[in-house]
Amino acid sequence: MSNILIVHAHHEPKSFSSALAQTAKEVLTRQGHEVVFSDLYAMKFDPVSDRRNFRSVANPDYLKQQVEETYATNHNGFAADLETEMRKIEACDLLIFSFPLWWFSMPAILKGWVDRVFAYDRFYGAGRWYDTGHFQGKRAMVLMTTGSDEEKYSGRGPHASLEVLLAPIHHGIFRFNGFSPLSPFVAWSAAHGTDSDRGLVIEAWKQRLKNLLTETALPNPAAEL
Amino acid sequence: MSNILIVHAHHEPKSFSSALAQTAKEVLTRQGHEVVFSDLYAMKFDPVSDRRNFRSVANPDYLKQQVEETYATNHNGFAADLETEMRKIEACDLLIFSFPLWWFSMPAILKGWVDRVFAYDRFYGAGRWYDTGHFQGKRAMVLMTTGSDEEKYSGRGPHASLEVLLAPIHHGIFRFNGFSPLSPFVAWSAAHGTDSDRGLVIEAWKQRLKNLLTETALPNPAAEL
Repeated sequence: MSNILIVHAHHEPKSFSSALAQTAKEVLTRQGHEVVFSDLYAMKFDPVSDRRNFRSVANPDYLKQQVEETYATNHNGFAADLETEMRKIEACDLLIFSFPLWWFSMPAILKGWVDRVFAYDRFYGAGRWYDTGHFQGKRAMVLMTTGSDEEKYSGRGPHASLEVLLAPIHHGIFRFNGFSPLSPFVAWSAAHGTDSDRGLVIEAWKQRLKNLLTETALPNPAAEL
Repeated sequence: MSNILIVHAHHEPKSFSSALAQTAKEVLTRQGHEVVFSDLYAMKFDPVSDRRNFRSVANPDYLKQQVEETYATNHNGFAADLETEMRKIEACDLLIFSFPLWWFSMPAILKGWVDRVFAYDRFYGAGRWYDTGHFQGKRAMVLMTTGSDEEKYSGRGPHASLEVLLAPIHHGIFRFNGFSPLSPFVAWSAAHGTDSDRGLVIEAWKQRLKNLLTETALPNPAAEL
């Protein structure tokens, strides 16, 4: 049995993005895993990073994020909403970011979760990054819906390729913090298909979920990023 | 005389990031340009995108962003804070995003400005994107500070390259909407230098600012992204 944290960022509970996240929760729970679900819109999670991140104050005259994060790490000074999310990441074996691709990256509410929760000193710094990252041994993956079809993210235009678009997440967030990224699960152009199309995507996702904890992680990028 | 919109996202007014943005405002104003400054932290800009974006409602039972954006475009239905920002973009000849690189992309408060302000129908859709984008003829650029030095973003490790990291912004936001991206101005590892180092960066930025409205924009990416 593993602990799985799903961080979901869609404002419509009836959306296909939300259906994919709920499917993950149900299937993984039935498999006997402990599933923790951070539904950021339902939680009214605040994505703005500043002094609201802290109960402690290292320097009241100049807000330097990493100085305050170091101080908060050593003085139990993180705001309650962040401390709760931090403990969820610490407990998880697999982290899933579930979101619709907005402007070729994460919705702000999820970017702010990353900005605020992955704090210096507690989770990185002093040589801990990438191969020596804090979360080595854990897995992470992207579960997302897109507006355009797959061909448009192939690198042959018009959009930047999926690999490039996910690099800030796969390499910059997951690998930086020590997580091994799994292959993303992408529902291409979800809104433009039929109910039957979407049913097939749900089935493919259920199949994928069977082996999520044991499948081989993505290789480190061979080529230069 | 041109109209320049600076959208700035740093929580510390005394930071070097804020100094670079203020320098741009002062120098461009002295050159006779009209400079509009959206200081997102000072404005307490709300980056969460949902029904708060709208005064109008197209479908009360299911929130589909692009449906509501289309309806709001045609019924003067955008929330006042968004309408104000939309008019600023409509008026500008040059758009500058000023921010510290957080987790290899924009701070959430700026990502949310993009999520909420660049609305479907008003600014894209019906064939308007990239070479037929709404804002064709306008320029846009990134002004940013980083935590690591330049070599670490060169593509030779450990981070993804600057080109890859900026692709979602340059290609996915600027070019998608018709803007021609200018070369970014990057203050590398600003926090780790001396006051003298930072003074040299400010001088280099002042020099660059002299020709911002006339310099050649970045070429479209020759290689596949």
